[in-house]
Amino acid sequence: MGRWEPDARGRLARAALELYAERGYEQTTVADIAQHAGVTERTFFRHFTDKREVLFDRSNTLQDAMVAAIAAAPASTPPVEIVVGALQTAGAMLEERHDWSRRRATVIAANPSLLERELLKLAALATAAGEALRGRGVREPRASLAAEMGVTAFKVGFERWVAEPPTQRMKLADCIGDALAEIRALTATR
Amino acid sequence: MGRWEPDARGRLARAALELYAERGYEQTTVADIAQHAGVTERTFFRHFTDKREVLFDRSNTLQDAMVAAIAAAPASTPPVEIVVGALQTAGAMLEERHDWSRRRATVIAANPSLLERELLKLAALATAAGEALRGRGVREPRASLAAEMGVTAFKVGFERWVAEPPTQRMKLADCIGDALAEIRALTATR
Repeated sequence: MGRWEPDARGRLARAALELYAERGYEQTTVADIAQHAGVTERTFFRHFTDKREVLFDRSNTLQDAMVAAIAAAPASTPPVEIVVGALQTAGAMLEERHDWSRRRATVIAANPSLLERELLKLAALATAAGEALRGRGVREPRASLAAEMGVTAFKVGFERWVAEPPTQRMKLADCIGDALAEIRALTATR
Repeated sequence: MGRWEPDARGRLARAALELYAERGYEQTTVADIAQHAGVTERTFFRHFTDKREVLFDRSNTLQDAMVAAIAAAPASTPPVEIVVGALQTAGAMLEERHDWSRRRATVIAANPSLLERELLKLAALATAAGEALRGRGVREPRASLAAEMGVTAFKVGFERWVAEPPTQRMKLADCIGDALAEIRALTATR
């Protein structure tokens, strides 16, 4: 016991999501999660700061990957494409986690405080994208607007992707690309 | 004393904003605000549920006005224009409150929990706009995307409007319209 359980982190995450779905998020304690995963509470706290963190620990990773991809984009790429491309690149780590993401979305939708946290994480993603664009010399308000457009394409694409049935599902990157195409059609000048 | 002070609500709102700017939001109590406005705490609570509400009581009014304007838009208007037009109409009530809005923005920017509340109000505005569009028969994902575009134009337009110097300032409706034009330019297919 202690720190050497193989994949304790993965087991804790799966146990947490299972209990949140079964009993409800509010009704599940860290002790329940640890017991269900067959580890101690101490082990839980070595991997996550609290039970909410289990659901949001990928947000920072996604944001860091997006910021790195924005910085690395070719100089000639227009701002909205930069952000959308960066989110497609960063989102690749989610492709193999479709089932997890799908169940996570159900838990979040059922809990207003988790829904608020998700919205704030998306707002932070847009703020970070805007900063990264300004770091490339994109001026205001173009940087903020391009960041918001890109994150909106991600949000709507992600919502569609998690709602897809597991069999023959689309790739997240394609769902994001489709959302951008729809934005273009909606804002095209007639 | 009691319920008959002339414009107690306006005096309370001005007193609150003054104290939030001077002492900080966290450091100001309802008792301080009531005293500064020359009314009782009971009078404060007849007008506002708590000290945060003083800063956000217009959000619901704005949202209701937007939803009504979306429902009333001509059948032929495209979805993004419907939302932007509705927010320009609803935002008219803010035009005469530039100084208040400007000082409110400073207080909110200085306080992360107020900033979160502001972001969540904007997210709720987008959700309500999407619902109102679906009520007109606009399908998903077009309704959600048009709602997000419209609220983004409002957000960026509003930020520019509050940052304008009080002399020779632009109208909020024009700032929102400019933001939409910028969105169109950013998403135009080359």
